[in-house]
Amino acid sequence: MPLCDVCGVREAEVYQPHTGRKLCRQCFINDILRRVEDEIKRYRLIEPGDKVLLAVSGGKDSFVLLDTLSQLHDPSKLIGLSIVEGVEGYNRREDVERLRKYAAQRGVEVVVTSFKEFIGYSLDEIIAKAWKKGLKVSPCTFCGALRRRIINTYARMLRADKTATAHTLDDEAQTAVMNVLRGDPDRLVRQHPRAPRLSDKFVQRVKPLRRIYEWEAAMYAYFKGFRFQEAECPYINLSPTLRARIREHLMSIEAENPGSLLRILDTIDRIVEANLEEYRKLPPLPLCEKCGEPTAPGRRLCKTCELLEKIGIT
Amino acid sequence: MPLCDVCGVREAEVYQPHTGRKLCRQCFINDILRRVEDEIKRYRLIEPGDKVLLAVSGGKDSFVLLDTLSQLHDPSKLIGLSIVEGVEGYNRREDVERLRKYAAQRGVEVVVTSFKEFIGYSLDEIIAKAWKKGLKVSPCTFCGALRRRIINTYARMLRADKTATAHTLDDEAQTAVMNVLRGDPDRLVRQHPRAPRLSDKFVQRVKPLRRIYEWEAAMYAYFKGFRFQEAECPYINLSPTLRARIREHLMSIEAENPGSLLRILDTIDRIVEANLEEYRKLPPLPLCEKCGEPTAPGRRLCKTCELLEKIGIT
Repeated sequence: MPLCDVCGVREAEVYQPHTGRKLCRQCFINDILRRVEDEIKRYRLIEPGDKVLLAVSGGKDSFVLLDTLSQLHDPSKLIGLSIVEGVEGYNRREDVERLRKYAAQRGVEVVVTSFKEFIGYSLDEIIAKAWKKGLKVSPCTFCGALRRRIINTYARMLRADKTATAHTLDDEAQTAVMNVLRGDPDRLVRQHPRAPRLSDKFVQRVKPLRRIYEWEAAMYAYFKGFRFQEAECPYINLSPTLRARIREHLMSIEAENPGSLLRILDTIDRIVEANLEEYRKLPPLPLCEKCGEPTAPGRRLCKTCELLEKIGIT
Repeated sequence: MPLCDVCGVREAEVYQPHTGRKLCRQCFINDILRRVEDEIKRYRLIEPGDKVLLAVSGGKDSFVLLDTLSQLHDPSKLIGLSIVEGVEGYNRREDVERLRKYAAQRGVEVVVTSFKEFIGYSLDEIIAKAWKKGLKVSPCTFCGALRRRIINTYARMLRADKTATAHTLDDEAQTAVMNVLRGDPDRLVRQHPRAPRLSDKFVQRVKPLRRIYEWEAAMYAYFKGFRFQEAECPYINLSPTLRARIREHLMSIEAENPGSLLRILDTIDRIVEANLEEYRKLPPLPLCEKCGEPTAPGRRLCKTCELLEKIGIT
């Protein structure tokens, strides 16, 4: 077996195409941790003393988020939030319970809530009601909006300074390319780590894993002994396919030219930067008359409340 | 046959996926002409009184460039420049002669020159010398650099205010994606129509067809009676394949989501815009000690002269 290109002592166990290096388990883990730290410092994502609410699903990415941040930040200042959507055949309670125990060992508390608890209906119940009314609403769109609202509400309640999600480089590059293909420069700007909040009611969101490849997060979790098969949400096949197609294109580009995803993110970060000043001058978003959360300019209700109203949930 | 969606009178002959319209020949031609005009006005690419040097190869895109510009600008202020590279089996003289005759009818003169005339050697001779010396130089890179230099030199000699090339939307979107994938935000900025010149010795380059799909340029040329098979340069198969692969990815994305190429260009134009001010502050490029043309900061010779010197052409 070849030796690790970093320590030169231990056997290499993993090949990192974007750097061309073979790494041992320990040096690979250190590499990930250092890159998460670099990203946090580069954009001042989290500052000493910040109280951070971590959105954790129980899957491998959220494990990596929790594991790395609890080494880089005072664990007593971290709190996990897990949201159970309530989807038949997609039992998240077990995943969450496992992550809760692991987090407790690292000194991090995990709060568990659910759609049912938050608005009185599970995702299954909401979607069934919507479909019964003939509303063509994608479960993923609805779920995402509701989850973002719950995370933001909890962050305010718990007086968190930041909310952190476990989006990886693959997620972020896909989103960036989607925003370009859709012709949506505003969303591209909002994706930047230093993008200004559009409302004081939004707690600043940060993505510490945004420069870590998804395969790297999986490998990190595996090396750290986190070896559970993630369940897949059954609604996934009903979701829009644009992201899936972009994922395929990006995977083939990355395979042909290792490091492409990193370069995509770097280039877009850099050219977006000059746009941030302009965005700081935008007036704050109006608030939804029903839930009091920020909504798009000119709207009376937010999109979530509007949908819930149409479904008959008030 | 269905009727044209624009005039409602003539038979539709062409379907335009990015607008979802069926168009007759006349309305299609008008659409292209109007979009070229919009692009010119949007970025003030060409202003009344400007003397413009058109780089024309003799192919369909350069036909479209010449045909549209001669309707949108005083033809006596336009002058074509055709550069014969000198490649065995790629006889450009005929194409150029045909375009020269057509241009004359429109009141536009076309000047013809060649690599042989400009530096004493044809592209074939240059590449043969380079390969003999074991230099791994891509013919396309060399040819592009030399052509840009000849165009710029002629533009200065003829006191042109602008040089125009026939790059289409497909070319520009491919280049933009390549610049993102390579991690080159500087080149992305330089691609913007309002990007500042990096040297007074560079005549401003404009691309009036940058929002016209390549298939639209082909169809326009066909409708206007320009029906000649373009020869393909035999060096094409030796050229780097990154662009070819990106072309394939983009074609499949465009086929699935018509209008994607336009949205890519729009989004990148918009977010790049905020970077232009910063680029205006850059110091002018130094000049090559040999040819006097601008070169990259810190270089004594320009890349072309350096290569020619290595090959033994001085």
